[in-house]
Amino acid sequence: MSVLRSGQQPPDWRDLVALKLAAQRKELEPFLIPASRLPPVDQKNVLSFFDEDGNINVNLREREIAAVSDVDVVLEKTRSGEWTCVELVTCYIRRYGIVFYLPLSALKSVNTLTEPLFARALAHAAKLDSLPPSKRGPLHGLPITLKDQFNVAGVDSTIGYVCNINNASQLVPSAIVQILERLGAVVIAKTNLPQSIMWCETENNIFGRTDNPRDRTFTPGGSSGGEAVNLVMKGGLVGWGTDIGGSIRIPGALTGVYGLKPSSTRLPYQDVTVSTEGQEHVPSVIGPMARSISSLVTVMKAVLSAEPWMLDPKVVPIPWRDDIYNDTLNRKLIIGVLRDDGVVRVHPPIKRILDEAVRKLEAAGHEIIEWIPDGHAAAIAVMDAFYSADGGEDIKRAVTSSGEPFIAHVERLVNRGPPISVYEYWQLNKRKWTSQKSYLDKWNASAGLTKSGKMVDLLLSPVIPHVAVPHQGCSWVGYTKIWNVLDYTAGVVPNVGVVDKEVDERVEYDGRNDMDRLNWDIYDPELMHGHPIGLQVVGRRLEEEKVLAGMGVVGAVLQASDVL
Amino acid sequence: MSVLRSGQQPPDWRDLVALKLAAQRKELEPFLIPASRLPPVDQKNVLSFFDEDGNINVNLREREIAAVSDVDVVLEKTRSGEWTCVELVTCYIRRYGIVFYLPLSALKSVNTLTEPLFARALAHAAKLDSLPPSKRGPLHGLPITLKDQFNVAGVDSTIGYVCNINNASQLVPSAIVQILERLGAVVIAKTNLPQSIMWCETENNIFGRTDNPRDRTFTPGGSSGGEAVNLVMKGGLVGWGTDIGGSIRIPGALTGVYGLKPSSTRLPYQDVTVSTEGQEHVPSVIGPMARSISSLVTVMKAVLSAEPWMLDPKVVPIPWRDDIYNDTLNRKLIIGVLRDDGVVRVHPPIKRILDEAVRKLEAAGHEIIEWIPDGHAAAIAVMDAFYSADGGEDIKRAVTSSGEPFIAHVERLVNRGPPISVYEYWQLNKRKWTSQKSYLDKWNASAGLTKSGKMVDLLLSPVIPHVAVPHQGCSWVGYTKIWNVLDYTAGVVPNVGVVDKEVDERVEYDGRNDMDRLNWDIYDPELMHGHPIGLQVVGRRLEEEKVLAGMGVVGAVLQASDVL
Repeated sequence: MSVLRSGQQPPDWRDLVALKLAAQRKELEPFLIPASRLPPVDQKNVLSFFDEDGNINVNLREREIAAVSDVDVVLEKTRSGEWTCVELVTCYIRRYGIVFYLPLSALKSVNTLTEPLFARALAHAAKLDSLPPSKRGPLHGLPITLKDQFNVAGVDSTIGYVCNINNASQLVPSAIVQILERLGAVVIAKTNLPQSIMWCETENNIFGRTDNPRDRTFTPGGSSGGEAVNLVMKGGLVGWGTDIGGSIRIPGALTGVYGLKPSSTRLPYQDVTVSTEGQEHVPSVIGPMARSISSLVTVMKAVLSAEPWMLDPKVVPIPWRDDIYNDTLNRKLIIGVLRDDGVVRVHPPIKRILDEAVRKLEAAGHEIIEWIPDGHAAAIAVMDAFYSADGGEDIKRAVTSSGEPFIAHVERLVNRGPPISVYEYWQLNKRKWTSQKSYLDKWNASAGLTKSGKMVDLLLSPVIPHVAVPHQGCSWVGYTKIWNVLDYTAGVVPNVGVVDKEVDERVEYDGRNDMDRLNWDIYDPELMHGHPIGLQVVGRRLEEEKVLAGMGVVGAVLQASDVL
Repeated sequence: MSVLRSGQQPPDWRDLVALKLAAQRKELEPFLIPASRLPPVDQKNVLSFFDEDGNINVNLREREIAAVSDVDVVLEKTRSGEWTCVELVTCYIRRYGIVFYLPLSALKSVNTLTEPLFARALAHAAKLDSLPPSKRGPLHGLPITLKDQFNVAGVDSTIGYVCNINNASQLVPSAIVQILERLGAVVIAKTNLPQSIMWCETENNIFGRTDNPRDRTFTPGGSSGGEAVNLVMKGGLVGWGTDIGGSIRIPGALTGVYGLKPSSTRLPYQDVTVSTEGQEHVPSVIGPMARSISSLVTVMKAVLSAEPWMLDPKVVPIPWRDDIYNDTLNRKLIIGVLRDDGVVRVHPPIKRILDEAVRKLEAAGHEIIEWIPDGHAAAIAVMDAFYSADGGEDIKRAVTSSGEPFIAHVERLVNRGPPISVYEYWQLNKRKWTSQKSYLDKWNASAGLTKSGKMVDLLLSPVIPHVAVPHQGCSWVGYTKIWNVLDYTAGVVPNVGVVDKEVDERVEYDGRNDMDRLNWDIYDPELMHGHPIGLQVVGRRLEEEKVLAGMGVVGAVLQASDVL
């Protein structure tokens, strides 16, 4: 998808963007439906439109295909040959991968797409269809989408920077993409993210802003906002995001899709394009997002069976551990519930759902203890210092090299303060270790707090103190980023409830600090009515199997919907 | 072993050292034998003296005990009660832990000891003897020694810095020490290391220099030189060292003891005192050293069975994998032989032994391919830059705070250049990743070079380009440090041969560079005659079981002696 040949003088950044969008439109063109079929510009909720009216031009088979959100069901049909890969991929391209992603000013819808890879996907699907059954991989024909950090041969990875337009020739395909394609998955598109990635909403100067499909004046969260919206609108079956502070879990919760943030070193980050690269102490991780919990399990199993440590030197050689997964799924668990992190209080509907979760889990025989967030503030302070330890130099270089302007939040980040020295950086790292060790000891000590005398299995916590909010409304991400600095495994179980304006009334609350007050002020049950609520399930480091099983348990008890 | 109470004004560094040594002597006093029994000051080789003449004052049971170098044999006897723990520990204290470690000018011998913990060890052993058989741990009564970085309750960890004298009250016992003691091991002493740790010999301003027992004008290598000499002189059964560039393997090879450098995150570094702490990109690791390969296996199994990841947040939850160990032990292996790293050529006896190893391994049915050291120089350059990325600030602060002088090699290290910025540090880290990824790809590609079409299992390589050399003679550690920057598992199989002045003649060689010429110049078959030769077995990251099994295979084929 490169738009310039090397050797050419780079034009004004606006011209570069225009060329990039023209190339994008060219790839989309063959699949466009008439503009007259699009929702009106002022229609806020476009989710139902595309779920119903968007079906106008698809055939019955395509309706049947799109209705399935569980990859196991889909894979059974592709591997048996009941559905061809071309048929499956075509359905996604036609029904969900097209018009409503086109970022043409007034005609754009929720704007999730950066790189449509439809021609490539159809060619790949046709090749898969020609394989004899014995050669069909475990993910045969599975349509997937990728956040615009994952490298695909011949395609740019902009990570929201204008300077990266036309960088395709410098990129090596990501290890995870190599693995997924080897297993039979088909990449159909790449999706939107914020400039620099380091923000919990989704906006950049190339592709613009991604909107929340339930209210286009709302944000879907970020930084994997393009993935989340794409999935909730059934633009794919599995998406791949990244998470350095909540970037998989926040958009998952705000839009209503499942997501897993593994511990670092479990999945390969090799050749995934990222900002502040080389900062390894609070690492960004990749993780799957999907429309059902079983889809996450299937994909994790498949990827680990491919031995990702043979492609990425940082990955630990731990295969999928079915014993841990099954053990967790089939016994009564001990769950610590974190209701308030002591910094920003959650909005009333989230409190309601968490209280309800505790009652239902206890009724199902699980033991619940209260989890006190000691040490969170200290750990988060260390983490924030790592983000800007270079004085913002990495991000400044990338933004200024093309002449594009800073997005407001990125500008705040890079101007937080001067760089620290390497010696100070090492001292900072020691503080991180202290936080990690304290938390490990705290978790071990939980054995003294439970009836059984065994330590807590998992934690249940909010994802973010609010549901979806108007654009620019996200601020406190302490409920997610704490697990990044500790490098624990965490996943989001979405759709465990919705805001109900009749029940979730505003209550008076003074707030403990500016952030807390700011968050409380934006609560508006009328405006937020109907938006989904997600909860977070947290395990210790490298406990992906346990967390996935725990997400299954929590989801079942709370009757989480795959799609709301 | 603190010598000052907090609140006192610190005296001149020489007074601090004098107080420290006086306290050390006080602990030793009850166990001293008359100075008249020590070897003459000018006797270079003291190994046989203590093996024979040193037996004068020990009883028959103690001779029997000390003759056993395999911990499995020892543990069978302690666990059955045939030997009591007190008896075992007393034997080590009396026969090997005493006089010849006392650093009293002319009377000192090889000087391995920093902290004699004899009273503590005897009390611990007595407590173990009172346990009923059902409560005896897997390492019941095993005498161990620890490099002076491992924290023991109430004992200093100087890491060779005068400023750390009297730091006991600030230290938390190391996770590994907690684990070993819980398993039944008895710490009998802590051992010598170089100022700052960052050097391949063993000398500091507190305890002085550790000598090679086969020639006291020679170095035993370092930085775990105290451990190695202690073991080769049977001053303990298992020792614990650390390795950030060869610090376990080099002294192991030069003195004749087994050692394993695991990959980082396999064993707990929690609360091990170290210099340049916070530098996590080329991490120092802990590892066991012993007088037999089976001892290493037993200790690794025991430590991993104790789930060290429950004490150290950086440790990966990978239990001991018996399947990998047994598979490696019981089949024909494919081994890459690295004969020359392209920077410094090995001395003739090492070349001879490596050639012999190839013949014998092939005769035993293993497949050997030549291993080309592409990328070693680039990876090592990155590593050296990490060591001094802070411009030497960390080490400078520690040395200058007490007023002690720099040891020459430490001064060279800290004056290598100015600090780099955090941004540059991140770029350096990206270069490290590139090296790691290239090496992983290279290893995978070895499948194209073997007869079987399978990739190489393990590498066989020199440890260092020479055997033991006169003090200050070590320089090029590229054969070991390459595996630190790649974070691969590596172990030393010692005593696979000795220098033979009749066979290993000097040959003319011009040298490729100054380091290479320097190394070639120091070769002296007459002086080095009889010194042991060790080889290195290398596996990929986190392949400890495979490397230990491979060390067993190589040791058996080459008939390595437990003690030379």
